[in-house]
Amino acid sequence: MSAIHKFKNRDGGFCWDGVEIQHYSTEQAAKVTKQVLIGARDGAGNFEMRYFELVPQSRTSLDQHEHDHGVMVVRGRGKVRINEQQSEIEYGDVVYISANDLHQFANDSEEPFGFICIIPPKS
Amino acid sequence: MSAIHKFKNRDGGFCWDGVEIQHYSTEQAAKVTKQVLIGARDGAGNFEMRYFELVPQSRTSLDQHEHDHGVMVVRGRGKVRINEQQSEIEYGDVVYISANDLHQFANDSEEPFGFICIIPPKS
Repeated sequence: MSAIHKFKNRDGGFCWDGVEIQHYSTEQAAKVTKQVLIGARDGAGNFEMRYFELVPQSRTSLDQHEHDHGVMVVRGRGKVRINEQQSEIEYGDVVYISANDLHQFANDSEEPFGFICIIPPKS
Repeated sequence: MSAIHKFKNRDGGFCWDGVEIQHYSTEQAAKVTKQVLIGARDGAGNFEMRYFELVPQSRTSLDQHEHDHGVMVVRGRGKVRINEQQSEIEYGDVVYISANDLHQFANDSEEPFGFICIIPPKS
Protein backbone atom coordinates (compact mmCIF):
# COMPACT_ATOMS: atom_id res chain seq x y z
CA MET A 1 0.00 0.00 0.00
CA SER A 2 1.25 3.48 -0.80
CA ALA A 3 2.79 5.28 2.18
CA ILE A 4 4.62 8.47 3.17
CA HIS A 5 7.39 8.37 5.79
CA LYS A 6 8.14 11.92 6.92
CA PHE A 7 11.77 12.78 7.50
CA LYS A 8 12.76 13.84 11.02
CA ASN A 9 16.12 15.37 11.74
CA ARG A 10 15.76 14.73 15.47
CA ASP A 11 18.60 16.06 17.66
CA GLY A 12 20.83 15.95 14.60
CA GLY A 13 19.96 12.31 13.86
CA PHE A 14 18.33 11.20 10.62
CA CYS A 15 15.12 9.25 11.15
CA TRP A 16 11.70 8.81 9.57
CA ASP A 17 8.15 8.39 10.87
CA GLY A 18 7.22 4.75 11.19
CA VAL A 19 10.76 3.51 10.56
CA GLU A 20 12.73 1.59 13.18
CA ILE A 21 16.46 2.23 13.70
CA GLN A 22 18.22 -1.14 13.55
CA HIS A 23 21.77 -2.17 14.26
CA TYR A 24 23.64 -3.38 11.25
CA SER A 25 25.63 -6.22 12.78
CA THR A 26 26.74 -7.30 16.23
CA GLU A 27 30.36 -6.50 15.49
CA GLN A 28 29.59 -2.86 14.63
CA ALA A 29 26.39 -2.63 16.68
CA ALA A 30 26.99 0.80 18.13
CA LYS A 31 28.59 2.19 15.00
CA VAL A 32 26.46 1.35 11.98
CA THR A 33 22.67 1.70 11.85
CA LYS A 34 20.17 0.67 9.21
CA GLN A 35 16.65 1.95 8.56
CA VAL A 36 14.39 0.26 6.04
CA LEU A 37 12.62 3.23 4.43
CA ILE A 38 10.66 1.20 1.88
CA GLY A 39 10.28 -2.55 2.13
CA ALA A 40 8.07 -5.46 3.05
CA ARG A 41 6.25 -3.31 5.65
CA ASP A 42 4.93 -1.17 2.79
CA GLY A 43 4.14 -4.16 0.61
CA ALA A 44 7.07 -3.32 -1.65
CA GLY A 45 8.18 -6.56 -3.29
CA ASN A 46 10.33 -5.24 -6.15
CA PHE A 47 13.06 -3.36 -4.25
CA GLU A 48 14.08 -2.11 -0.82
CA MET A 49 15.21 1.41 0.02
CA ARG A 50 17.37 1.52 3.13
CA TYR A 51 19.34 4.27 4.93
CA PHE A 52 22.69 3.36 6.50
CA GLU A 53 24.63 5.64 8.80
CA LEU A 54 28.19 5.20 10.06
CA VAL A 55 29.47 7.11 13.08
CA PRO A 56 32.93 8.66 12.75
CA GLN A 57 35.77 6.14 12.51
CA SER A 58 33.67 3.12 11.55
CA ARG A 59 33.14 0.84 8.58
CA THR A 60 30.74 -1.76 7.23
CA SER A 61 31.85 -5.33 6.80
CA LEU A 62 33.63 -6.33 3.59
CA ASP A 63 30.77 -7.86 1.63
CA GLN A 64 30.36 -9.84 -1.57
CA HIS A 65 27.04 -11.26 -2.71
CA GLU A 66 24.77 -11.88 -5.67
CA HIS A 67 22.56 -8.81 -5.33
CA ASP A 68 23.62 -5.41 -6.62
CA HIS A 69 23.35 -2.04 -4.80
CA GLY A 70 22.31 1.45 -5.83
CA VAL A 71 23.70 4.06 -3.45
CA MET A 72 23.38 7.83 -2.99
CA VAL A 73 25.25 9.70 -0.28
CA VAL A 74 22.87 11.98 1.64
CA ARG A 75 24.96 12.86 4.68
CA GLY A 76 28.62 13.74 5.10
CA ARG A 77 31.46 12.02 3.33
CA GLY A 78 33.18 8.66 3.36
CA LYS A 79 34.98 6.06 1.33
CA VAL A 80 33.81 3.13 -0.72
CA ARG A 81 35.99 0.18 -1.63
CA ILE A 82 34.91 -1.73 -4.74
CA ASN A 83 37.16 -4.71 -5.37
CA GLU A 84 40.67 -3.20 -5.11
CA GLN A 85 39.60 0.40 -5.81
CA GLN A 86 39.13 2.94 -2.98
CA SER A 87 37.13 6.12 -3.77
CA GLU A 88 36.20 9.19 -1.75
CA ILE A 89 32.46 9.91 -1.93
CA GLU A 90 30.42 12.76 -0.56
CA TYR A 91 26.98 14.34 -0.56
CA GLY A 92 25.00 13.56 -3.72
CA ASP A 93 27.45 11.08 -5.21
CA VAL A 94 25.86 7.99 -6.74
CA VAL A 95 27.48 4.54 -6.64
CA TYR A 96 26.40 1.42 -8.48
CA ILE A 97 27.87 -1.80 -7.08
CA SER A 98 27.47 -4.75 -9.43
CA ALA A 99 26.59 -8.25 -8.33
CA ASN A 100 29.54 -10.14 -6.83
CA ASP A 101 31.82 -7.10 -6.54
CA LEU A 102 33.60 -6.95 -3.19
CA HIS A 103 32.56 -3.75 -1.35
CA GLN A 104 32.92 -1.88 1.92
CA PHE A 105 31.99 1.60 3.18
CA ALA A 106 34.11 3.50 5.69
CA ASN A 107 33.83 6.75 7.60
CA ASP A 108 37.24 8.22 8.48
CA SER A 109 35.73 11.69 9.06
CA GLU A 110 34.60 13.38 12.26
CA GLU A 111 30.94 13.61 11.17
CA PRO A 112 28.24 10.99 10.51
CA PHE A 113 28.29 9.45 7.02
CA GLY A 114 24.92 8.36 5.66
CA PHE A 115 23.66 6.91 2.39
CA ILE A 116 20.57 5.53 0.74
CA CYS A 117 21.02 1.97 -0.50
CA ILE A 118 18.69 0.19 -2.94
CA ILE A 119 18.60 -3.58 -3.30
CA PRO A 120 16.44 -5.88 -5.41
CA PRO A 121 14.29 -8.43 -3.56
CA LYS A 122 16.52 -11.02 -1.94
CA SER A 123 15.85 -14.47 -3.32
CA MET B 1 29.83 -2.87 -14.06
CA SER B 2 30.26 -0.92 -10.82
CA ALA B 3 30.42 2.84 -11.34
CA ILE B 4 30.57 6.14 -9.44
CA HIS B 5 28.71 9.20 -10.75
CA LYS B 6 29.98 12.28 -8.93
CA PHE B 7 27.41 14.88 -7.98
CA LYS B 8 27.80 18.36 -9.47
CA ASN B 9 25.80 21.28 -8.21
CA ARG B 10 26.62 23.33 -11.29
CA ASP B 11 25.27 26.90 -11.27
CA GLY B 12 22.65 25.80 -8.77
CA GLY B 13 21.53 22.86 -10.94
CA PHE B 14 21.72 19.25 -9.82
CA CYS B 15 23.65 17.05 -12.23
CA TRP B 16 26.02 14.08 -12.15
CA ASP B 17 29.14 13.07 -14.09
CA GLY B 18 28.27 10.85 -17.03
CA VAL B 19 24.52 11.42 -16.71
CA GLU B 20 22.47 13.09 -19.42
CA ILE B 21 19.70 15.57 -18.55
CA GLN B 22 16.57 14.44 -20.40
CA HIS B 23 13.19 16.04 -20.86
CA TYR B 24 10.38 14.19 -19.20
CA SER B 25 7.66 14.63 -21.82
CA THR B 26 6.92 16.95 -24.71
CA GLU B 27 4.05 18.58 -22.86
CA GLN B 28 6.25 19.61 -19.92
CA ALA B 29 9.52 19.63 -21.87
CA ALA B 30 10.95 22.80 -20.40
CA LYS B 31 9.58 22.19 -16.93
CA VAL B 32 10.38 18.64 -15.85
CA THR B 33 13.75 16.96 -16.32
CA LYS B 34 14.85 13.39 -15.73
CA GLN B 35 18.33 11.97 -15.13
CA VAL B 36 18.94 8.22 -15.02
CA LEU B 37 21.53 7.93 -12.24
CA ILE B 38 21.69 4.13 -12.28
CA GLY B 39 20.29 2.06 -15.12
CA ALA B 40 20.99 0.05 -18.22
CA ARG B 41 24.14 2.15 -18.93
CA ASP B 42 25.66 0.74 -15.75
CA GLY B 43 24.45 -2.78 -16.48
CA ALA B 44 21.88 -2.49 -13.70
CA GLY B 45 19.06 -4.87 -14.56
CA ASN B 46 17.24 -5.09 -11.23
CA PHE B 47 16.20 -1.46 -10.67
CA GLU B 48 16.65 2.07 -11.97
CA MET B 49 17.52 5.12 -9.88
CA ARG B 50 16.35 8.35 -11.51
CA TYR B 51 16.36 12.02 -10.45
CA PHE B 52 13.41 14.19 -11.46
CA GLU B 53 13.30 17.94 -11.09
CA LEU B 54 10.32 20.26 -11.51
CA VAL B 55 10.76 23.99 -12.02
CA PRO B 56 8.46 26.26 -9.98
CA GLN B 57 4.80 26.05 -10.97
CA SER B 58 4.94 22.75 -12.81
CA ARG B 59 3.72 19.20 -12.45
CA THR B 60 4.26 15.70 -13.80
CA SER B 61 1.51 13.96 -15.73
CA LEU B 62 -1.16 12.05 -13.83
CA ASP B 63 0.14 8.49 -14.11
CA GLN B 64 -1.13 5.02 -13.34
CA HIS B 65 0.82 1.88 -14.22
CA GLU B 66 1.83 -1.57 -13.08
CA HIS B 67 5.26 -0.68 -11.67
CA ASP B 68 5.70 0.79 -8.21
CA HIS B 69 7.89 3.76 -7.20
CA GLY B 70 10.22 4.47 -4.31
CA VAL B 71 10.77 8.21 -3.87
CA MET B 72 12.94 10.43 -1.67
CA VAL B 73 12.79 14.22 -1.85
CA VAL B 74 16.30 15.65 -2.11
CA ARG B 75 15.58 19.23 -3.18
CA GLY B 76 12.95 21.73 -2.10
CA ARG B 77 9.33 20.90 -1.45
CA GLY B 78 6.28 19.91 -3.43
CA LYS B 79 3.08 17.93 -3.44
CA VAL B 80 2.27 14.35 -4.27
CA ARG B 81 -1.17 13.13 -5.21
CA ILE B 82 -1.81 9.42 -4.60
CA ASN B 83 -5.29 8.43 -5.74
CA GLU B 84 -7.51 11.11 -4.16
CA GLN B 85 -5.04 12.09 -1.41
CA GLN B 86 -2.83 15.22 -1.71
CA SER B 87 0.20 15.48 0.59
CA GLU B 88 2.89 18.10 1.11
CA ILE B 89 6.37 16.62 0.94
CA GLU B 90 9.76 18.15 1.55
CA TYR B 91 13.44 17.40 1.91
CA GLY B 92 14.10 13.85 3.14
CA ASP B 93 10.51 12.62 2.98
CA VAL B 94 10.09 9.12 1.57
CA VAL B 95 7.10 8.06 -0.53
CA TYR B 96 6.16 4.56 -1.63
CA ILE B 97 3.67 4.45 -4.51
CA SER B 98 2.12 1.03 -5.00
CA ALA B 99 1.45 -0.56 -8.37
CA ASN B 100 -1.65 0.84 -10.07
CA ASP B 101 -2.10 3.79 -7.70
CA LEU B 102 -2.85 7.03 -9.54
CA HIS B 103 -0.06 9.55 -8.84
CA GLN B 104 1.21 13.00 -9.73
CA PHE B 105 3.92 15.34 -8.42
CA ALA B 106 3.54 19.12 -8.39
CA ASN B 107 5.71 22.10 -7.54
CA ASP B 108 3.68 25.11 -6.41
CA SER B 109 6.73 26.69 -4.76
CA GLU B 110 9.17 29.30 -6.05
CA GLU B 111 12.18 26.94 -5.89
CA PRO B 112 13.10 23.77 -7.81
CA PHE B 113 11.60 20.54 -6.45
CA GLY B 114 13.68 17.39 -6.97
CA PHE B 115 13.39 13.77 -5.97
CA ILE B 116 15.04 10.41 -6.42
CA CYS B 117 12.70 7.81 -7.91
CA ILE B 118 13.34 4.06 -7.93
CA ILE B 119 11.55 1.69 -10.30
CA PRO B 120 11.86 -2.03 -10.89
CA PRO B 121 12.91 -3.20 -14.37
CA LYS B 122 10.12 -2.44 -16.83
CA SER B 123 8.80 -5.61 -18.37
